[in-house]
Amino acid sequence: MAGNTFGKAFRVTTWGESHGTGVGAVIDGCPPGIVLDPAFLQAEMDRRRPGQGGASSPRKEPDQLEILSGIFIPEGEDLPRTTGTPISLAIYNKDAHSKSYDTLRDIFRPGHGDISYLAKYGIRDHRGGGRASARETAARVAAGAVARQVLEQAGIDVLAYTVALGGVKITEKNLEVINDNRFFCPDAAAAEKMEARVDEVRRMGDTLGGIVEIVADCPAGLGEPVFDKLEAELAHGLMSIGAVKGVEIGAGFKVADMLGSENNDAITPEGFEGNNAGGILAGISSGNEIVIRVAVKPIPSISKKQQSVNLANEAVTIQVGGRHDISAIPRIIPVCEAMVRLTLVDHLLRHMSIAFPTE
Amino acid sequence: MAGNTFGKAFRVTTWGESHGTGVGAVIDGCPPGIVLDPAFLQAEMDRRRPGQGGASSPRKEPDQLEILSGIFIPEGEDLPRTTGTPISLAIYNKDAHSKSYDTLRDIFRPGHGDISYLAKYGIRDHRGGGRASARETAARVAAGAVARQVLEQAGIDVLAYTVALGGVKITEKNLEVINDNRFFCPDAAAAEKMEARVDEVRRMGDTLGGIVEIVADCPAGLGEPVFDKLEAELAHGLMSIGAVKGVEIGAGFKVADMLGSENNDAITPEGFEGNNAGGILAGISSGNEIVIRVAVKPIPSISKKQQSVNLANEAVTIQVGGRHDISAIPRIIPVCEAMVRLTLVDHLLRHMSIAFPTE
Amino acid sequence: MAGNTFGKAFRVTTWGESHGTGVGAVIDGCPPGIVLDPAFLQAEMDRRRPGQGGASSPRKEPDQLEILSGIFIPEGEDLPRTTGTPISLAIYNKDAHSKSYDTLRDIFRPGHGDISYLAKYGIRDHRGGGRASARETAARVAAGAVARQVLEQAGIDVLAYTVALGGVKITEKNLEVINDNRFFCPDAAAAEKMEARVDEVRRMGDTLGGIVEIVADCPAGLGEPVFDKLEAELAHGLMSIGAVKGVEIGAGFKVADMLGSENNDAITPEGFEGNNAGGILAGISSGNEIVIRVAVKPIPSISKKQQSVNLANEAVTIQVGGRHDISAIPRIIPVCEAMVRLTLVDHLLRHMSIAFPTE
Amino acid sequence: MAGNTFGKAFRVTTWGESHGTGVGAVIDGCPPGIVLDPAFLQAEMDRRRPGQGGASSPRKEPDQLEILSGIFIPEGEDLPRTTGTPISLAIYNKDAHSKSYDTLRDIFRPGHGDISYLAKYGIRDHRGGGRASARETAARVAAGAVARQVLEQAGIDVLAYTVALGGVKITEKNLEVINDNRFFCPDAAAAEKMEARVDEVRRMGDTLGGIVEIVADCPAGLGEPVFDKLEAELAHGLMSIGAVKGVEIGAGFKVADMLGSENNDAITPEGFEGNNAGGILAGISSGNEIVIRVAVKPIPSISKKQQSVNLANEAVTIQVGGRHDISAIPRIIPVCEAMVRLTLVDHLLRHMSIAFPTE
Repeated sequence: MAGNTFGKAFRVTTWGESHGTGVGAVIDGCPPGIVLDPAFLQAEMDRRRPGQGGASSPRKEPDQLEILSGIFIPEGEDLPRTTGTPISLAIYNKDAHSKSYDTLRDIFRPGHGDISYLAKYGIRDHRGGGRASARETAARVAAGAVARQVLEQAGIDVLAYTVALGGVKITEKNLEVINDNRFFCPDAAAAEKMEARVDEVRRMGDTLGGIVEIVADCPAGLGEPVFDKLEAELAHGLMSIGAVKGVEIGAGFKVADMLGSENNDAITPEGFEGNNAGGILAGISSGNEIVIRVAVKPIPSISKKQQSVNLANEAVTIQVGGRHDISAIPRIIPVCEAMVRLTLVDHLLRHMSIAFPTE
Repeated sequence: MAGNTFGKAFRVTTWGESHGTGVGAVIDGCPPGIVLDPAFLQAEMDRRRPGQGGASSPRKEPDQLEILSGIFIPEGEDLPRTTGTPISLAIYNKDAHSKSYDTLRDIFRPGHGDISYLAKYGIRDHRGGGRASARETAARVAAGAVARQVLEQAGIDVLAYTVALGGVKITEKNLEVINDNRFFCPDAAAAEKMEARVDEVRRMGDTLGGIVEIVADCPAGLGEPVFDKLEAELAHGLMSIGAVKGVEIGAGFKVADMLGSENNDAITPEGFEGNNAGGILAGISSGNEIVIRVAVKPIPSISKKQQSVNLANEAVTIQVGGRHDISAIPRIIPVCEAMVRLTLVDHLLRHMSIAFPTE
Repeated sequence: MAGNTFGKAFRVTTWGESHGTGVGAVIDGCPPGIVLDPAFLQAEMDRRRPGQGGASSPRKEPDQLEILSGIFIPEGEDLPRTTGTPISLAIYNKDAHSKSYDTLRDIFRPGHGDISYLAKYGIRDHRGGGRASARETAARVAAGAVARQVLEQAGIDVLAYTVALGGVKITEKNLEVINDNRFFCPDAAAAEKMEARVDEVRRMGDTLGGIVEIVADCPAGLGEPVFDKLEAELAHGLMSIGAVKGVEIGAGFKVADMLGSENNDAITPEGFEGNNAGGILAGISSGNEIVIRVAVKPIPSISKKQQSVNLANEAVTIQVGGRHDISAIPRIIPVCEAMVRLTLVDHLLRHMSIAFPTE
Repeated sequence: MAGNTFGKAFRVTTWGESHGTGVGAVIDGCPPGIVLDPAFLQAEMDRRRPGQGGASSPRKEPDQLEILSGIFIPEGEDLPRTTGTPISLAIYNKDAHSKSYDTLRDIFRPGHGDISYLAKYGIRDHRGGGRASARETAARVAAGAVARQVLEQAGIDVLAYTVALGGVKITEKNLEVINDNRFFCPDAAAAEKMEARVDEVRRMGDTLGGIVEIVADCPAGLGEPVFDKLEAELAHGLMSIGAVKGVEIGAGFKVADMLGSENNDAITPEGFEGNNAGGILAGISSGNEIVIRVAVKPIPSISKKQQSVNLANEAVTIQVGGRHDISAIPRIIPVCEAMVRLTLVDHLLRHMSIAFPTE
């Protein structure tokens, strides 16, 4: 049983490789009657586009989103609405340079899935990582954009931003400024230091990790104990992003050093005091803001020489060429938002199913 | 769509509340022919039994495991074998004191799911948390014990131990000693400090958090990209344990401060150098040891007075009585092992399905 | 991936064998707040009880239903309500005679699953068919009884009756009389002939097949094209009953001889004229009555001598002893109702999930 | 929870409407290393192409199949192989005449899903039935063609043919001749009578129903009791085809008139005598040939005048124009084969998962 579908009620199946025809997603379970604005969806796609500056590679992939099914423009309206049938989304590849990967045909790149993919499948599309490429996340962002238009109906929105990059941590959190710098960083001063750090590491031929925080306004009641608790599904979705090595909710790993009396969020008639729980209690959203953080590893494709082996298990030295990003941040930001949105819309629709009229 | 099933090939559905008839699990998809030794399964149950010392409450729940279906003793053998049909497991409650919870009928306990359960379901079994109680994890451990007997066939085993408790962190890791102290701690000196810290906090009427690490020997090839990556499913399973607030794989949150050249594990003809990846590359086990850590929050039931509200949303002061553990550690240790085993056995069987003979 | 779960929103997992501890079901996804009346549920169980007359065997299995979880009696109420958590149902075996099956240990009974179960699992519980026994359907009826209490909220009910048995076909359909004869037959005269036919065949040591019709009042809009069309799921559920060899909807196999102009049900302002469609159009209920028929094969356990082989593939003559029914009718009647109810309640809850407020 | 995915191990999700951009399917779970020959796949597509004669409409849809992902041509080979990642298949529409459907905007066609789709979704793509069009089955045939290449590895093949059309029934069954007439009919004389009947009914402006039989050579052991029995899943798959109103296995509805001693297939050292069971015992393939029949209703789009209502529920007379087939036969033949293949490949892969090495 392969694992290319996310969600149970709002089910997203993605397909495609970095250097094939394209990538795409089929959404099954989107409610009917939702307005899908093609311009809005395309704007969401554009947020993860590379080539916007120093931390991203100069490749230009337009990521033109096409909606192949599941919509219909009702008579007298301007924008398409969903019909309740599967929504097929495709982004065709336009700028693939398979040749630049030919040197990797027989070598396993450290930190990449080359070696594990071959162990699993016995066959490997070596061109740029194939299915394991970050290119695959374009399909997630496309599906997440549709999810966003559904979530708007329930007043749910999601926001991701950078709280650490290359050792630079934010010291203040002003969400007003996150669109003023290319790291979606809520601390303008920290953003400048991140910029300098990126430049420094680029010259070293190396790459950088960081931490992304995602917040969501969410009504109480979402999440399906005991295994599909909201935090469990959020962790599942976020940890399925290639670069993510850790997920924490609310106080996260800090709870290890806390007393129960410190960690418990007091409840008052006006709401919770504090948010160590991160907006989720016993697997169900409490109405408090959902707060999650993910650890983003440095991109494994570096210009420095590395030790590895070839298909014959002989030691080789490898130096990955091509144009690569210095960090998965900021391009991972809309991907994190997409995975949180896909999780929330799935749970919104799963919850609906038990909002059944009782006596 | 409720969420009380874990796994897709080895599917475990749990049922039961803390103060009802009991708890149990039905396993669908266990391979036939596996020897299930009732004594072995019961020994696994006994590992999470409370009443073994200071960090655990004095309640004595025997947790007697009963196997209701799915097994058969072949002629001439002593032990039952699985038949490939559903395995129904039950642990009937024997020591429930519903009365001690009557004072909680109208009050939401801070840090507990009382308030979110009511928001979701509109009805609440207030007796000891109902389904949200740690009692539910007995069913996980039972299913995990069956999983362990399947995993033995593939040479996979899993071990969990405490690396931090109440601010005390291990400074050495000697897995030989983890059964010599009641925290399953691989550092004997740290275990003594943990003991002292637990005593201190018990007198304060407070509770403690900590960190558990889980390791697994696992062959290469398990995990189902792109959404059911092995780390994503492990995170899902572990984060579905009530007390867990964070999960990290390999270097985990430390990757935020690392360079790509530091984080990449070099590959040599003899294997990987280092294990920042935690045994998983691109969502598929690499053959390196799997290493995961989870953040365990302090138990929310404390003896200290706390602020909360009642069903009428009026401010109240609450003091949770009854006998409670000081920390989810060590009882969470076998639960963590169970969730990792359930994840691995599921992926072992899911992977089997594509080990299909090709031309 | 085993297949012991039915439904996607109202998910029923059954367990148990004919001669083990018992049989049971876990329901995950039942809406909260539904009154479950234990006496009502038990009455449903009693409808499939054997020993009620000539077509059924004289074994007396009380089929005492126990509800192990998922319910709670709210203060001031008399009957339990569902809490939205898993409902565990168990029926423990009381009258199993394993010894009478010992002669079958090495022989495959014709018409039974002995040979195919062994081919699949490599291990077989030979006692009375194990999991393949009709005993398993007790768990379905239990779950169907819960489904019935949910469906009542939506005004949906289901009724099954016998339209043919042993070659005797009904010539009139008066649903008022179906509880006046033990075949649930809507034609009193035909019921008498069925009785005579059963007596005749009993003396021959043989068994009889028949046809059951199931009708349901159902609102328009249930069913999930294109693969989970309502008729497809109904066929799935009904064909999963051991004795069923055919399923037809509305005009069924008669459509083969019809013209389009005959088969199309005209639509009028007052509703449909005719019901060749059987209440379903393009996979979605139309609001017209749902009408399904199933072909029920003769019970394969006959007293006559039959040719078969043993485990060594040697020819043997077999004569199945023990007490067996002459026909799966009437005991299959409540099982058919249960499967239709489980299908409808699942689709009711699946449909709810897209009844999402749009702009 | 929508229902556009078929299968659990070999999961096919289809998308697309009759008059949109096209139709397609994403297959998740296809084993890696399978050779996919584009010419073979296209030949399969061509079998369901319309415009081949009298019983089919003169529309020419080339149904050009495109494989968008999941394949890779290994160095030194000529044909692509599957990589174990999702296979995205698309068939773009080229010959859509939306305008001819404008007159249907406000009218419900009898026998079609117009009225039930609107009841369910509250929005309707009226152009040619949208998702409910037979056009959707092109995606099934495409996925079925991939399934066929997988099944070849296990020696499984499937064949469908016409046994009745418009009241003309076959009297002999010679599978050698089924490609010699356009009805895939195994009785040459009957095929001529069918031809005459089609011509007659065409002149009447009416349409015809029939019966298709499907046979499959299949090893013993496939099927997943108790709910996913092989016959239950086959019935599910076949009944999900729009025109199918009944499914029967082996002796099918004839069992209603049979004695147990007649219906039981005797077992001999050489195999089964007779095949009333249709190759399946207790839900698991027995090794005997699988035999299924489906009842195919007359196409509801007829040229004759019919009574119906419009959106305002006013009585109207409707006469469906456009070019339509006289019968779903023969175009439904490859669709039936596809659904049986998709069911068998899914169960082949599901079964693999429990063929796990035991002690």
